[in-house]
Amino acid sequence: MPIYTAPIKDLQFVLQDVLNAADSGIPGYDELEADFTAAVLEEAGKISEQVLAPLNLSGDREGCRFENGVVSTPKGFDQAFQVMKDGGWTALDCDPDYGGQGMPYVLATAVGEMFVSANMAFNMYQGLTHGAYSAIHTHGTDAQKAAYLPKMVSCDWTGTMNLTEPHCGTDLGLMRTRALPQDDGTYQITGQKIFISAGDHDLAENIIHLVLAKIPGGPDGIKGVSLFIVPKVLVNEDGSLGARNGVSVGKIEEKMGIHGNATCVMNYDAATGYLLGEAHKGMRAMFTMMNEARLGVGLQGYAVAEAAYQNAVFYAKDRLQGRAVTGAENPDGPADPLIVHPDIRRNLMDQKSFVEGARAFTLWGAQLIDRSHRAGDDAAEDMISLLTPVLKGFLTDKGFEMSSAAQQVYGGHGYIEEWGMSQFARDARITMIYEGANGVQALDLVGRKLPSKGGKPVMAFFEMVKSFLKDNEGNEALKADFLDPLKAASKHLQEAGMYFMAQGMKNPNNALAGSYDFMHLFGHVCLGLMWARMAKAAQAQLETGDGDNEFLKAKIITGRYYMARQLPMTATHLARIQSGAAPVMDLDEAHF
Amino acid sequence: MPIYTAPIKDLQFVLQDVLNAADSGIPGYDELEADFTAAVLEEAGKISEQVLAPLNLSGDREGCRFENGVVSTPKGFDQAFQVMKDGGWTALDCDPDYGGQGMPYVLATAVGEMFVSANMAFNMYQGLTHGAYSAIHTHGTDAQKAAYLPKMVSCDWTGTMNLTEPHCGTDLGLMRTRALPQDDGTYQITGQKIFISAGDHDLAENIIHLVLAKIPGGPDGIKGVSLFIVPKVLVNEDGSLGARNGVSVGKIEEKMGIHGNATCVMNYDAATGYLLGEAHKGMRAMFTMMNEARLGVGLQGYAVAEAAYQNAVFYAKDRLQGRAVTGAENPDGPADPLIVHPDIRRNLMDQKSFVEGARAFTLWGAQLIDRSHRAGDDAAEDMISLLTPVLKGFLTDKGFEMSSAAQQVYGGHGYIEEWGMSQFARDARITMIYEGANGVQALDLVGRKLPSKGGKPVMAFFEMVKSFLKDNEGNEALKADFLDPLKAASKHLQEAGMYFMAQGMKNPNNALAGSYDFMHLFGHVCLGLMWARMAKAAQAQLETGDGDNEFLKAKIITGRYYMARQLPMTATHLARIQSGAAPVMDLDEAHF
Repeated sequence: MPIYTAPIKDLQFVLQDVLNAADSGIPGYDELEADFTAAVLEEAGKISEQVLAPLNLSGDREGCRFENGVVSTPKGFDQAFQVMKDGGWTALDCDPDYGGQGMPYVLATAVGEMFVSANMAFNMYQGLTHGAYSAIHTHGTDAQKAAYLPKMVSCDWTGTMNLTEPHCGTDLGLMRTRALPQDDGTYQITGQKIFISAGDHDLAENIIHLVLAKIPGGPDGIKGVSLFIVPKVLVNEDGSLGARNGVSVGKIEEKMGIHGNATCVMNYDAATGYLLGEAHKGMRAMFTMMNEARLGVGLQGYAVAEAAYQNAVFYAKDRLQGRAVTGAENPDGPADPLIVHPDIRRNLMDQKSFVEGARAFTLWGAQLIDRSHRAGDDAAEDMISLLTPVLKGFLTDKGFEMSSAAQQVYGGHGYIEEWGMSQFARDARITMIYEGANGVQALDLVGRKLPSKGGKPVMAFFEMVKSFLKDNEGNEALKADFLDPLKAASKHLQEAGMYFMAQGMKNPNNALAGSYDFMHLFGHVCLGLMWARMAKAAQAQLETGDGDNEFLKAKIITGRYYMARQLPMTATHLARIQSGAAPVMDLDEAHF
Repeated sequence: MPIYTAPIKDLQFVLQDVLNAADSGIPGYDELEADFTAAVLEEAGKISEQVLAPLNLSGDREGCRFENGVVSTPKGFDQAFQVMKDGGWTALDCDPDYGGQGMPYVLATAVGEMFVSANMAFNMYQGLTHGAYSAIHTHGTDAQKAAYLPKMVSCDWTGTMNLTEPHCGTDLGLMRTRALPQDDGTYQITGQKIFISAGDHDLAENIIHLVLAKIPGGPDGIKGVSLFIVPKVLVNEDGSLGARNGVSVGKIEEKMGIHGNATCVMNYDAATGYLLGEAHKGMRAMFTMMNEARLGVGLQGYAVAEAAYQNAVFYAKDRLQGRAVTGAENPDGPADPLIVHPDIRRNLMDQKSFVEGARAFTLWGAQLIDRSHRAGDDAAEDMISLLTPVLKGFLTDKGFEMSSAAQQVYGGHGYIEEWGMSQFARDARITMIYEGANGVQALDLVGRKLPSKGGKPVMAFFEMVKSFLKDNEGNEALKADFLDPLKAASKHLQEAGMYFMAQGMKNPNNALAGSYDFMHLFGHVCLGLMWARMAKAAQAQLETGDGDNEFLKAKIITGRYYMARQLPMTATHLARIQSGAAPVMDLDEAHF
């Protein structure tokens, strides 16, 4: 069975030494002293290691079942869910007014990484609930909040998001689900939704579906979409459960991965729904949760890669095969461990340097969200909105690639399901697709986020990189290995932006044809920046001698790898971008 | 259900217009006139489309079963196998002395692409048989050839290769399977082999296992390994089937993909084996088949990607979602088809330009094998030996990546098994692992093939590129789009080679740490060369006006895409290589 060890030290390093959480001046962050975050992370780490990880492989093999209209989750999921509820883990960053613990989002994100690494499919049940909680918390009436939030904070009731229909996913303006206004102020919801994660299961007594639908007579297309609360079981005025609502599961999908999470076809047949927020403003309500939701998927990308990496390392140290070319390193054994071979190390270093960079990037993103929500900082909101498609698109593409790289270390055993390495790759694959396929993220980045506010957010990003470089100008220890490569990569990103400005004016396809490469270029610059920051933090601690010197040196060595071996990708992305639309658009449709 | 259309025109273009098969002066190639190859390809294409492709998804879903010691293949496989046998497709390039049709290997390769695209798992039953046939044909005694080959050419009996054991795959010197000499000249084979593709099934009345084992008292390690013929059912002197041999299936593996092919644990319990070739020279016997076997796996990589690509195109033209940014292209419909979006085209062009380049590369490789075997051309043998790890490693890495890219076009539907796109990615994944994991291919390339014969083969490769560039020096139509990028990429490859020579002397890890990037760099140069040749051939035909102008123009446009968007990767690979061993080797093992 695959192993998992919670990376407490690495998470603490990012929270405390890179993001300086407790001193960042964000309301609520004063609680995040090192001892406190360590205690929380260790407790969550234990649950991840001991409760969630042991159910990952079995959950994949067993999958969810759909019999007689009822969905059941794999063996052990119900007890594990109870552990999460009992420990208050589902309530960590929720509003204390509704039973939450009110912790910063950044801490919930650090905890969430471990839960996802240990068991991604399982963690989706509470993850989706959190998304639905946020929507109701932001857009609900006081009565709605009182009716639903306490039960959702505790995960006695779980939540879902219903967007996709058979004929439309990305283009929700084509939606057919209808909401007919009733005399009592409710709506009758009728239609079919597909790909509904955690759409039904046996872990909670009620499920609160958030459903996008059109009210007849409203505006055409995406502007005529409204959001509704549609409980599986109707809730009486006294809060007790009433009659079953007109919502049922059509089937559960057989998928490539995340078998432990039920992906449902949901049929709404004159189900009672309650308008959430304003009529016809459903998409706006969805958008307010989008940064968090997409950051959460980016997190899944690297968190699964972390679990896969840990197993690849274990195998590379354990499996004896061949001899080091520079002389036997295990002369008394029949062969040397895999890890002596340079190409195995190259592969492991790719994984390690990605995961650690991605962790810092994601937690920085979570801190930006806190700074926006808790400190009302508009610049932070602009920055995270700019970075969200990069977090989602880049981290999930690389997360899948790295999960597959970890699988490769196992040779043939990586292809056999009982070793669990195939599962990591299969699970990671969905993250590139859901919550906006990565091509849509690239489009969002180039078509919407770059030009937003006259380019102010992206200028602020460049300014931030520039300031960092300037602040560390005299740092000879960082110069060649970190600052110079970061400067070069950032310059590539700026050149790409300038190309879009100049050429996109002439033909928008000149920008859009390069959008995917731009998203990756941006991602590399972000991870390069994170590595430069981590190296700086490690170096500072090495100088004071306050930290674990071996750990800190390993950080710097890992960062050097990223800068030397991964950051050179920016040149290729720039070259592709600058080739413009012609190579992409010239071929007549008939010749594909 | 996924679609498949045999790409006859593209295969013909490579065989006739790029490789000039009929005029290449290789013995037996005079048969390969355009009309003849078209007829063969069309017939094989029909079987691929009508018999094999319809069983691909169902074969994956049903998988193989192992009950009461007996392995059964998915529904319909037996009838399809009979069709292959009846049509003589299993005998296409086999020796006429044993019932084969004696066609060049290049034609069998072109046919094989279609069979693999249509149903990779199914095609492995005959593919493995062909490998075993080749081993016996090359190393067997006349009596062995007479006893086994006719039945293997017809696939009345199939074959397998037994190398891997639980504790050793790449490092076969650690092998434990034993072969005890008997008084009658036979051997008693005892041991366990794993990952035996087509190790047992219900498609043939006998299975001829080729098994590597050690004869006690022989040299240690890899030099003491011998190869044995171990039939499932013993063959009497008159050719009739006798008693069951001491070989049985322990279990079949549950794998990520190729579910239609039974991957078996094989237990040999004092089974009767017959020495094939010389004692202790088993690895040498395996090596003589290695170029073909690895080219065959490289072919699987791009052939699966071709099938995935065809489906991605179908969906991109069919699925309506969003509007073209330059104005609606389907104004009467509710939305435009996906293919109007630049990033969807970028994705499809990545796939298309890879598959077509890979096809040309593979068929050129097959032609080199024919030139070596049929014309006794040592230079061709050297060249294909050099290129084999590139064909295997690069085409399978990219084949998987492109299958996953095709899956991405489907959005959420790509993750649902019933659409079949997940299967292409899952099936393609094994090609990076078996027949030598791709890291081992990179090691073979840099550690063995580059320095072989004092570097003569790689010098010949560079000379060939140089000649091509020189021969086309004045060709202004090709210069900017094809010749200049090829020249730049080839220069990167040369610089990488020089870096290895200079730095590898000081520390072999300086070369090995860059081996994987070198393999990819080499692969891009090969595909760049292939695209330049294809563009030249297309351009020449456009000038004469003899061909299908639209088809030829599409070739040039597709090639331009590869040169502009894919070839720039060579710069990044070179930068990584030139960063040397330090970033890869510096981290202490304890800190992974």
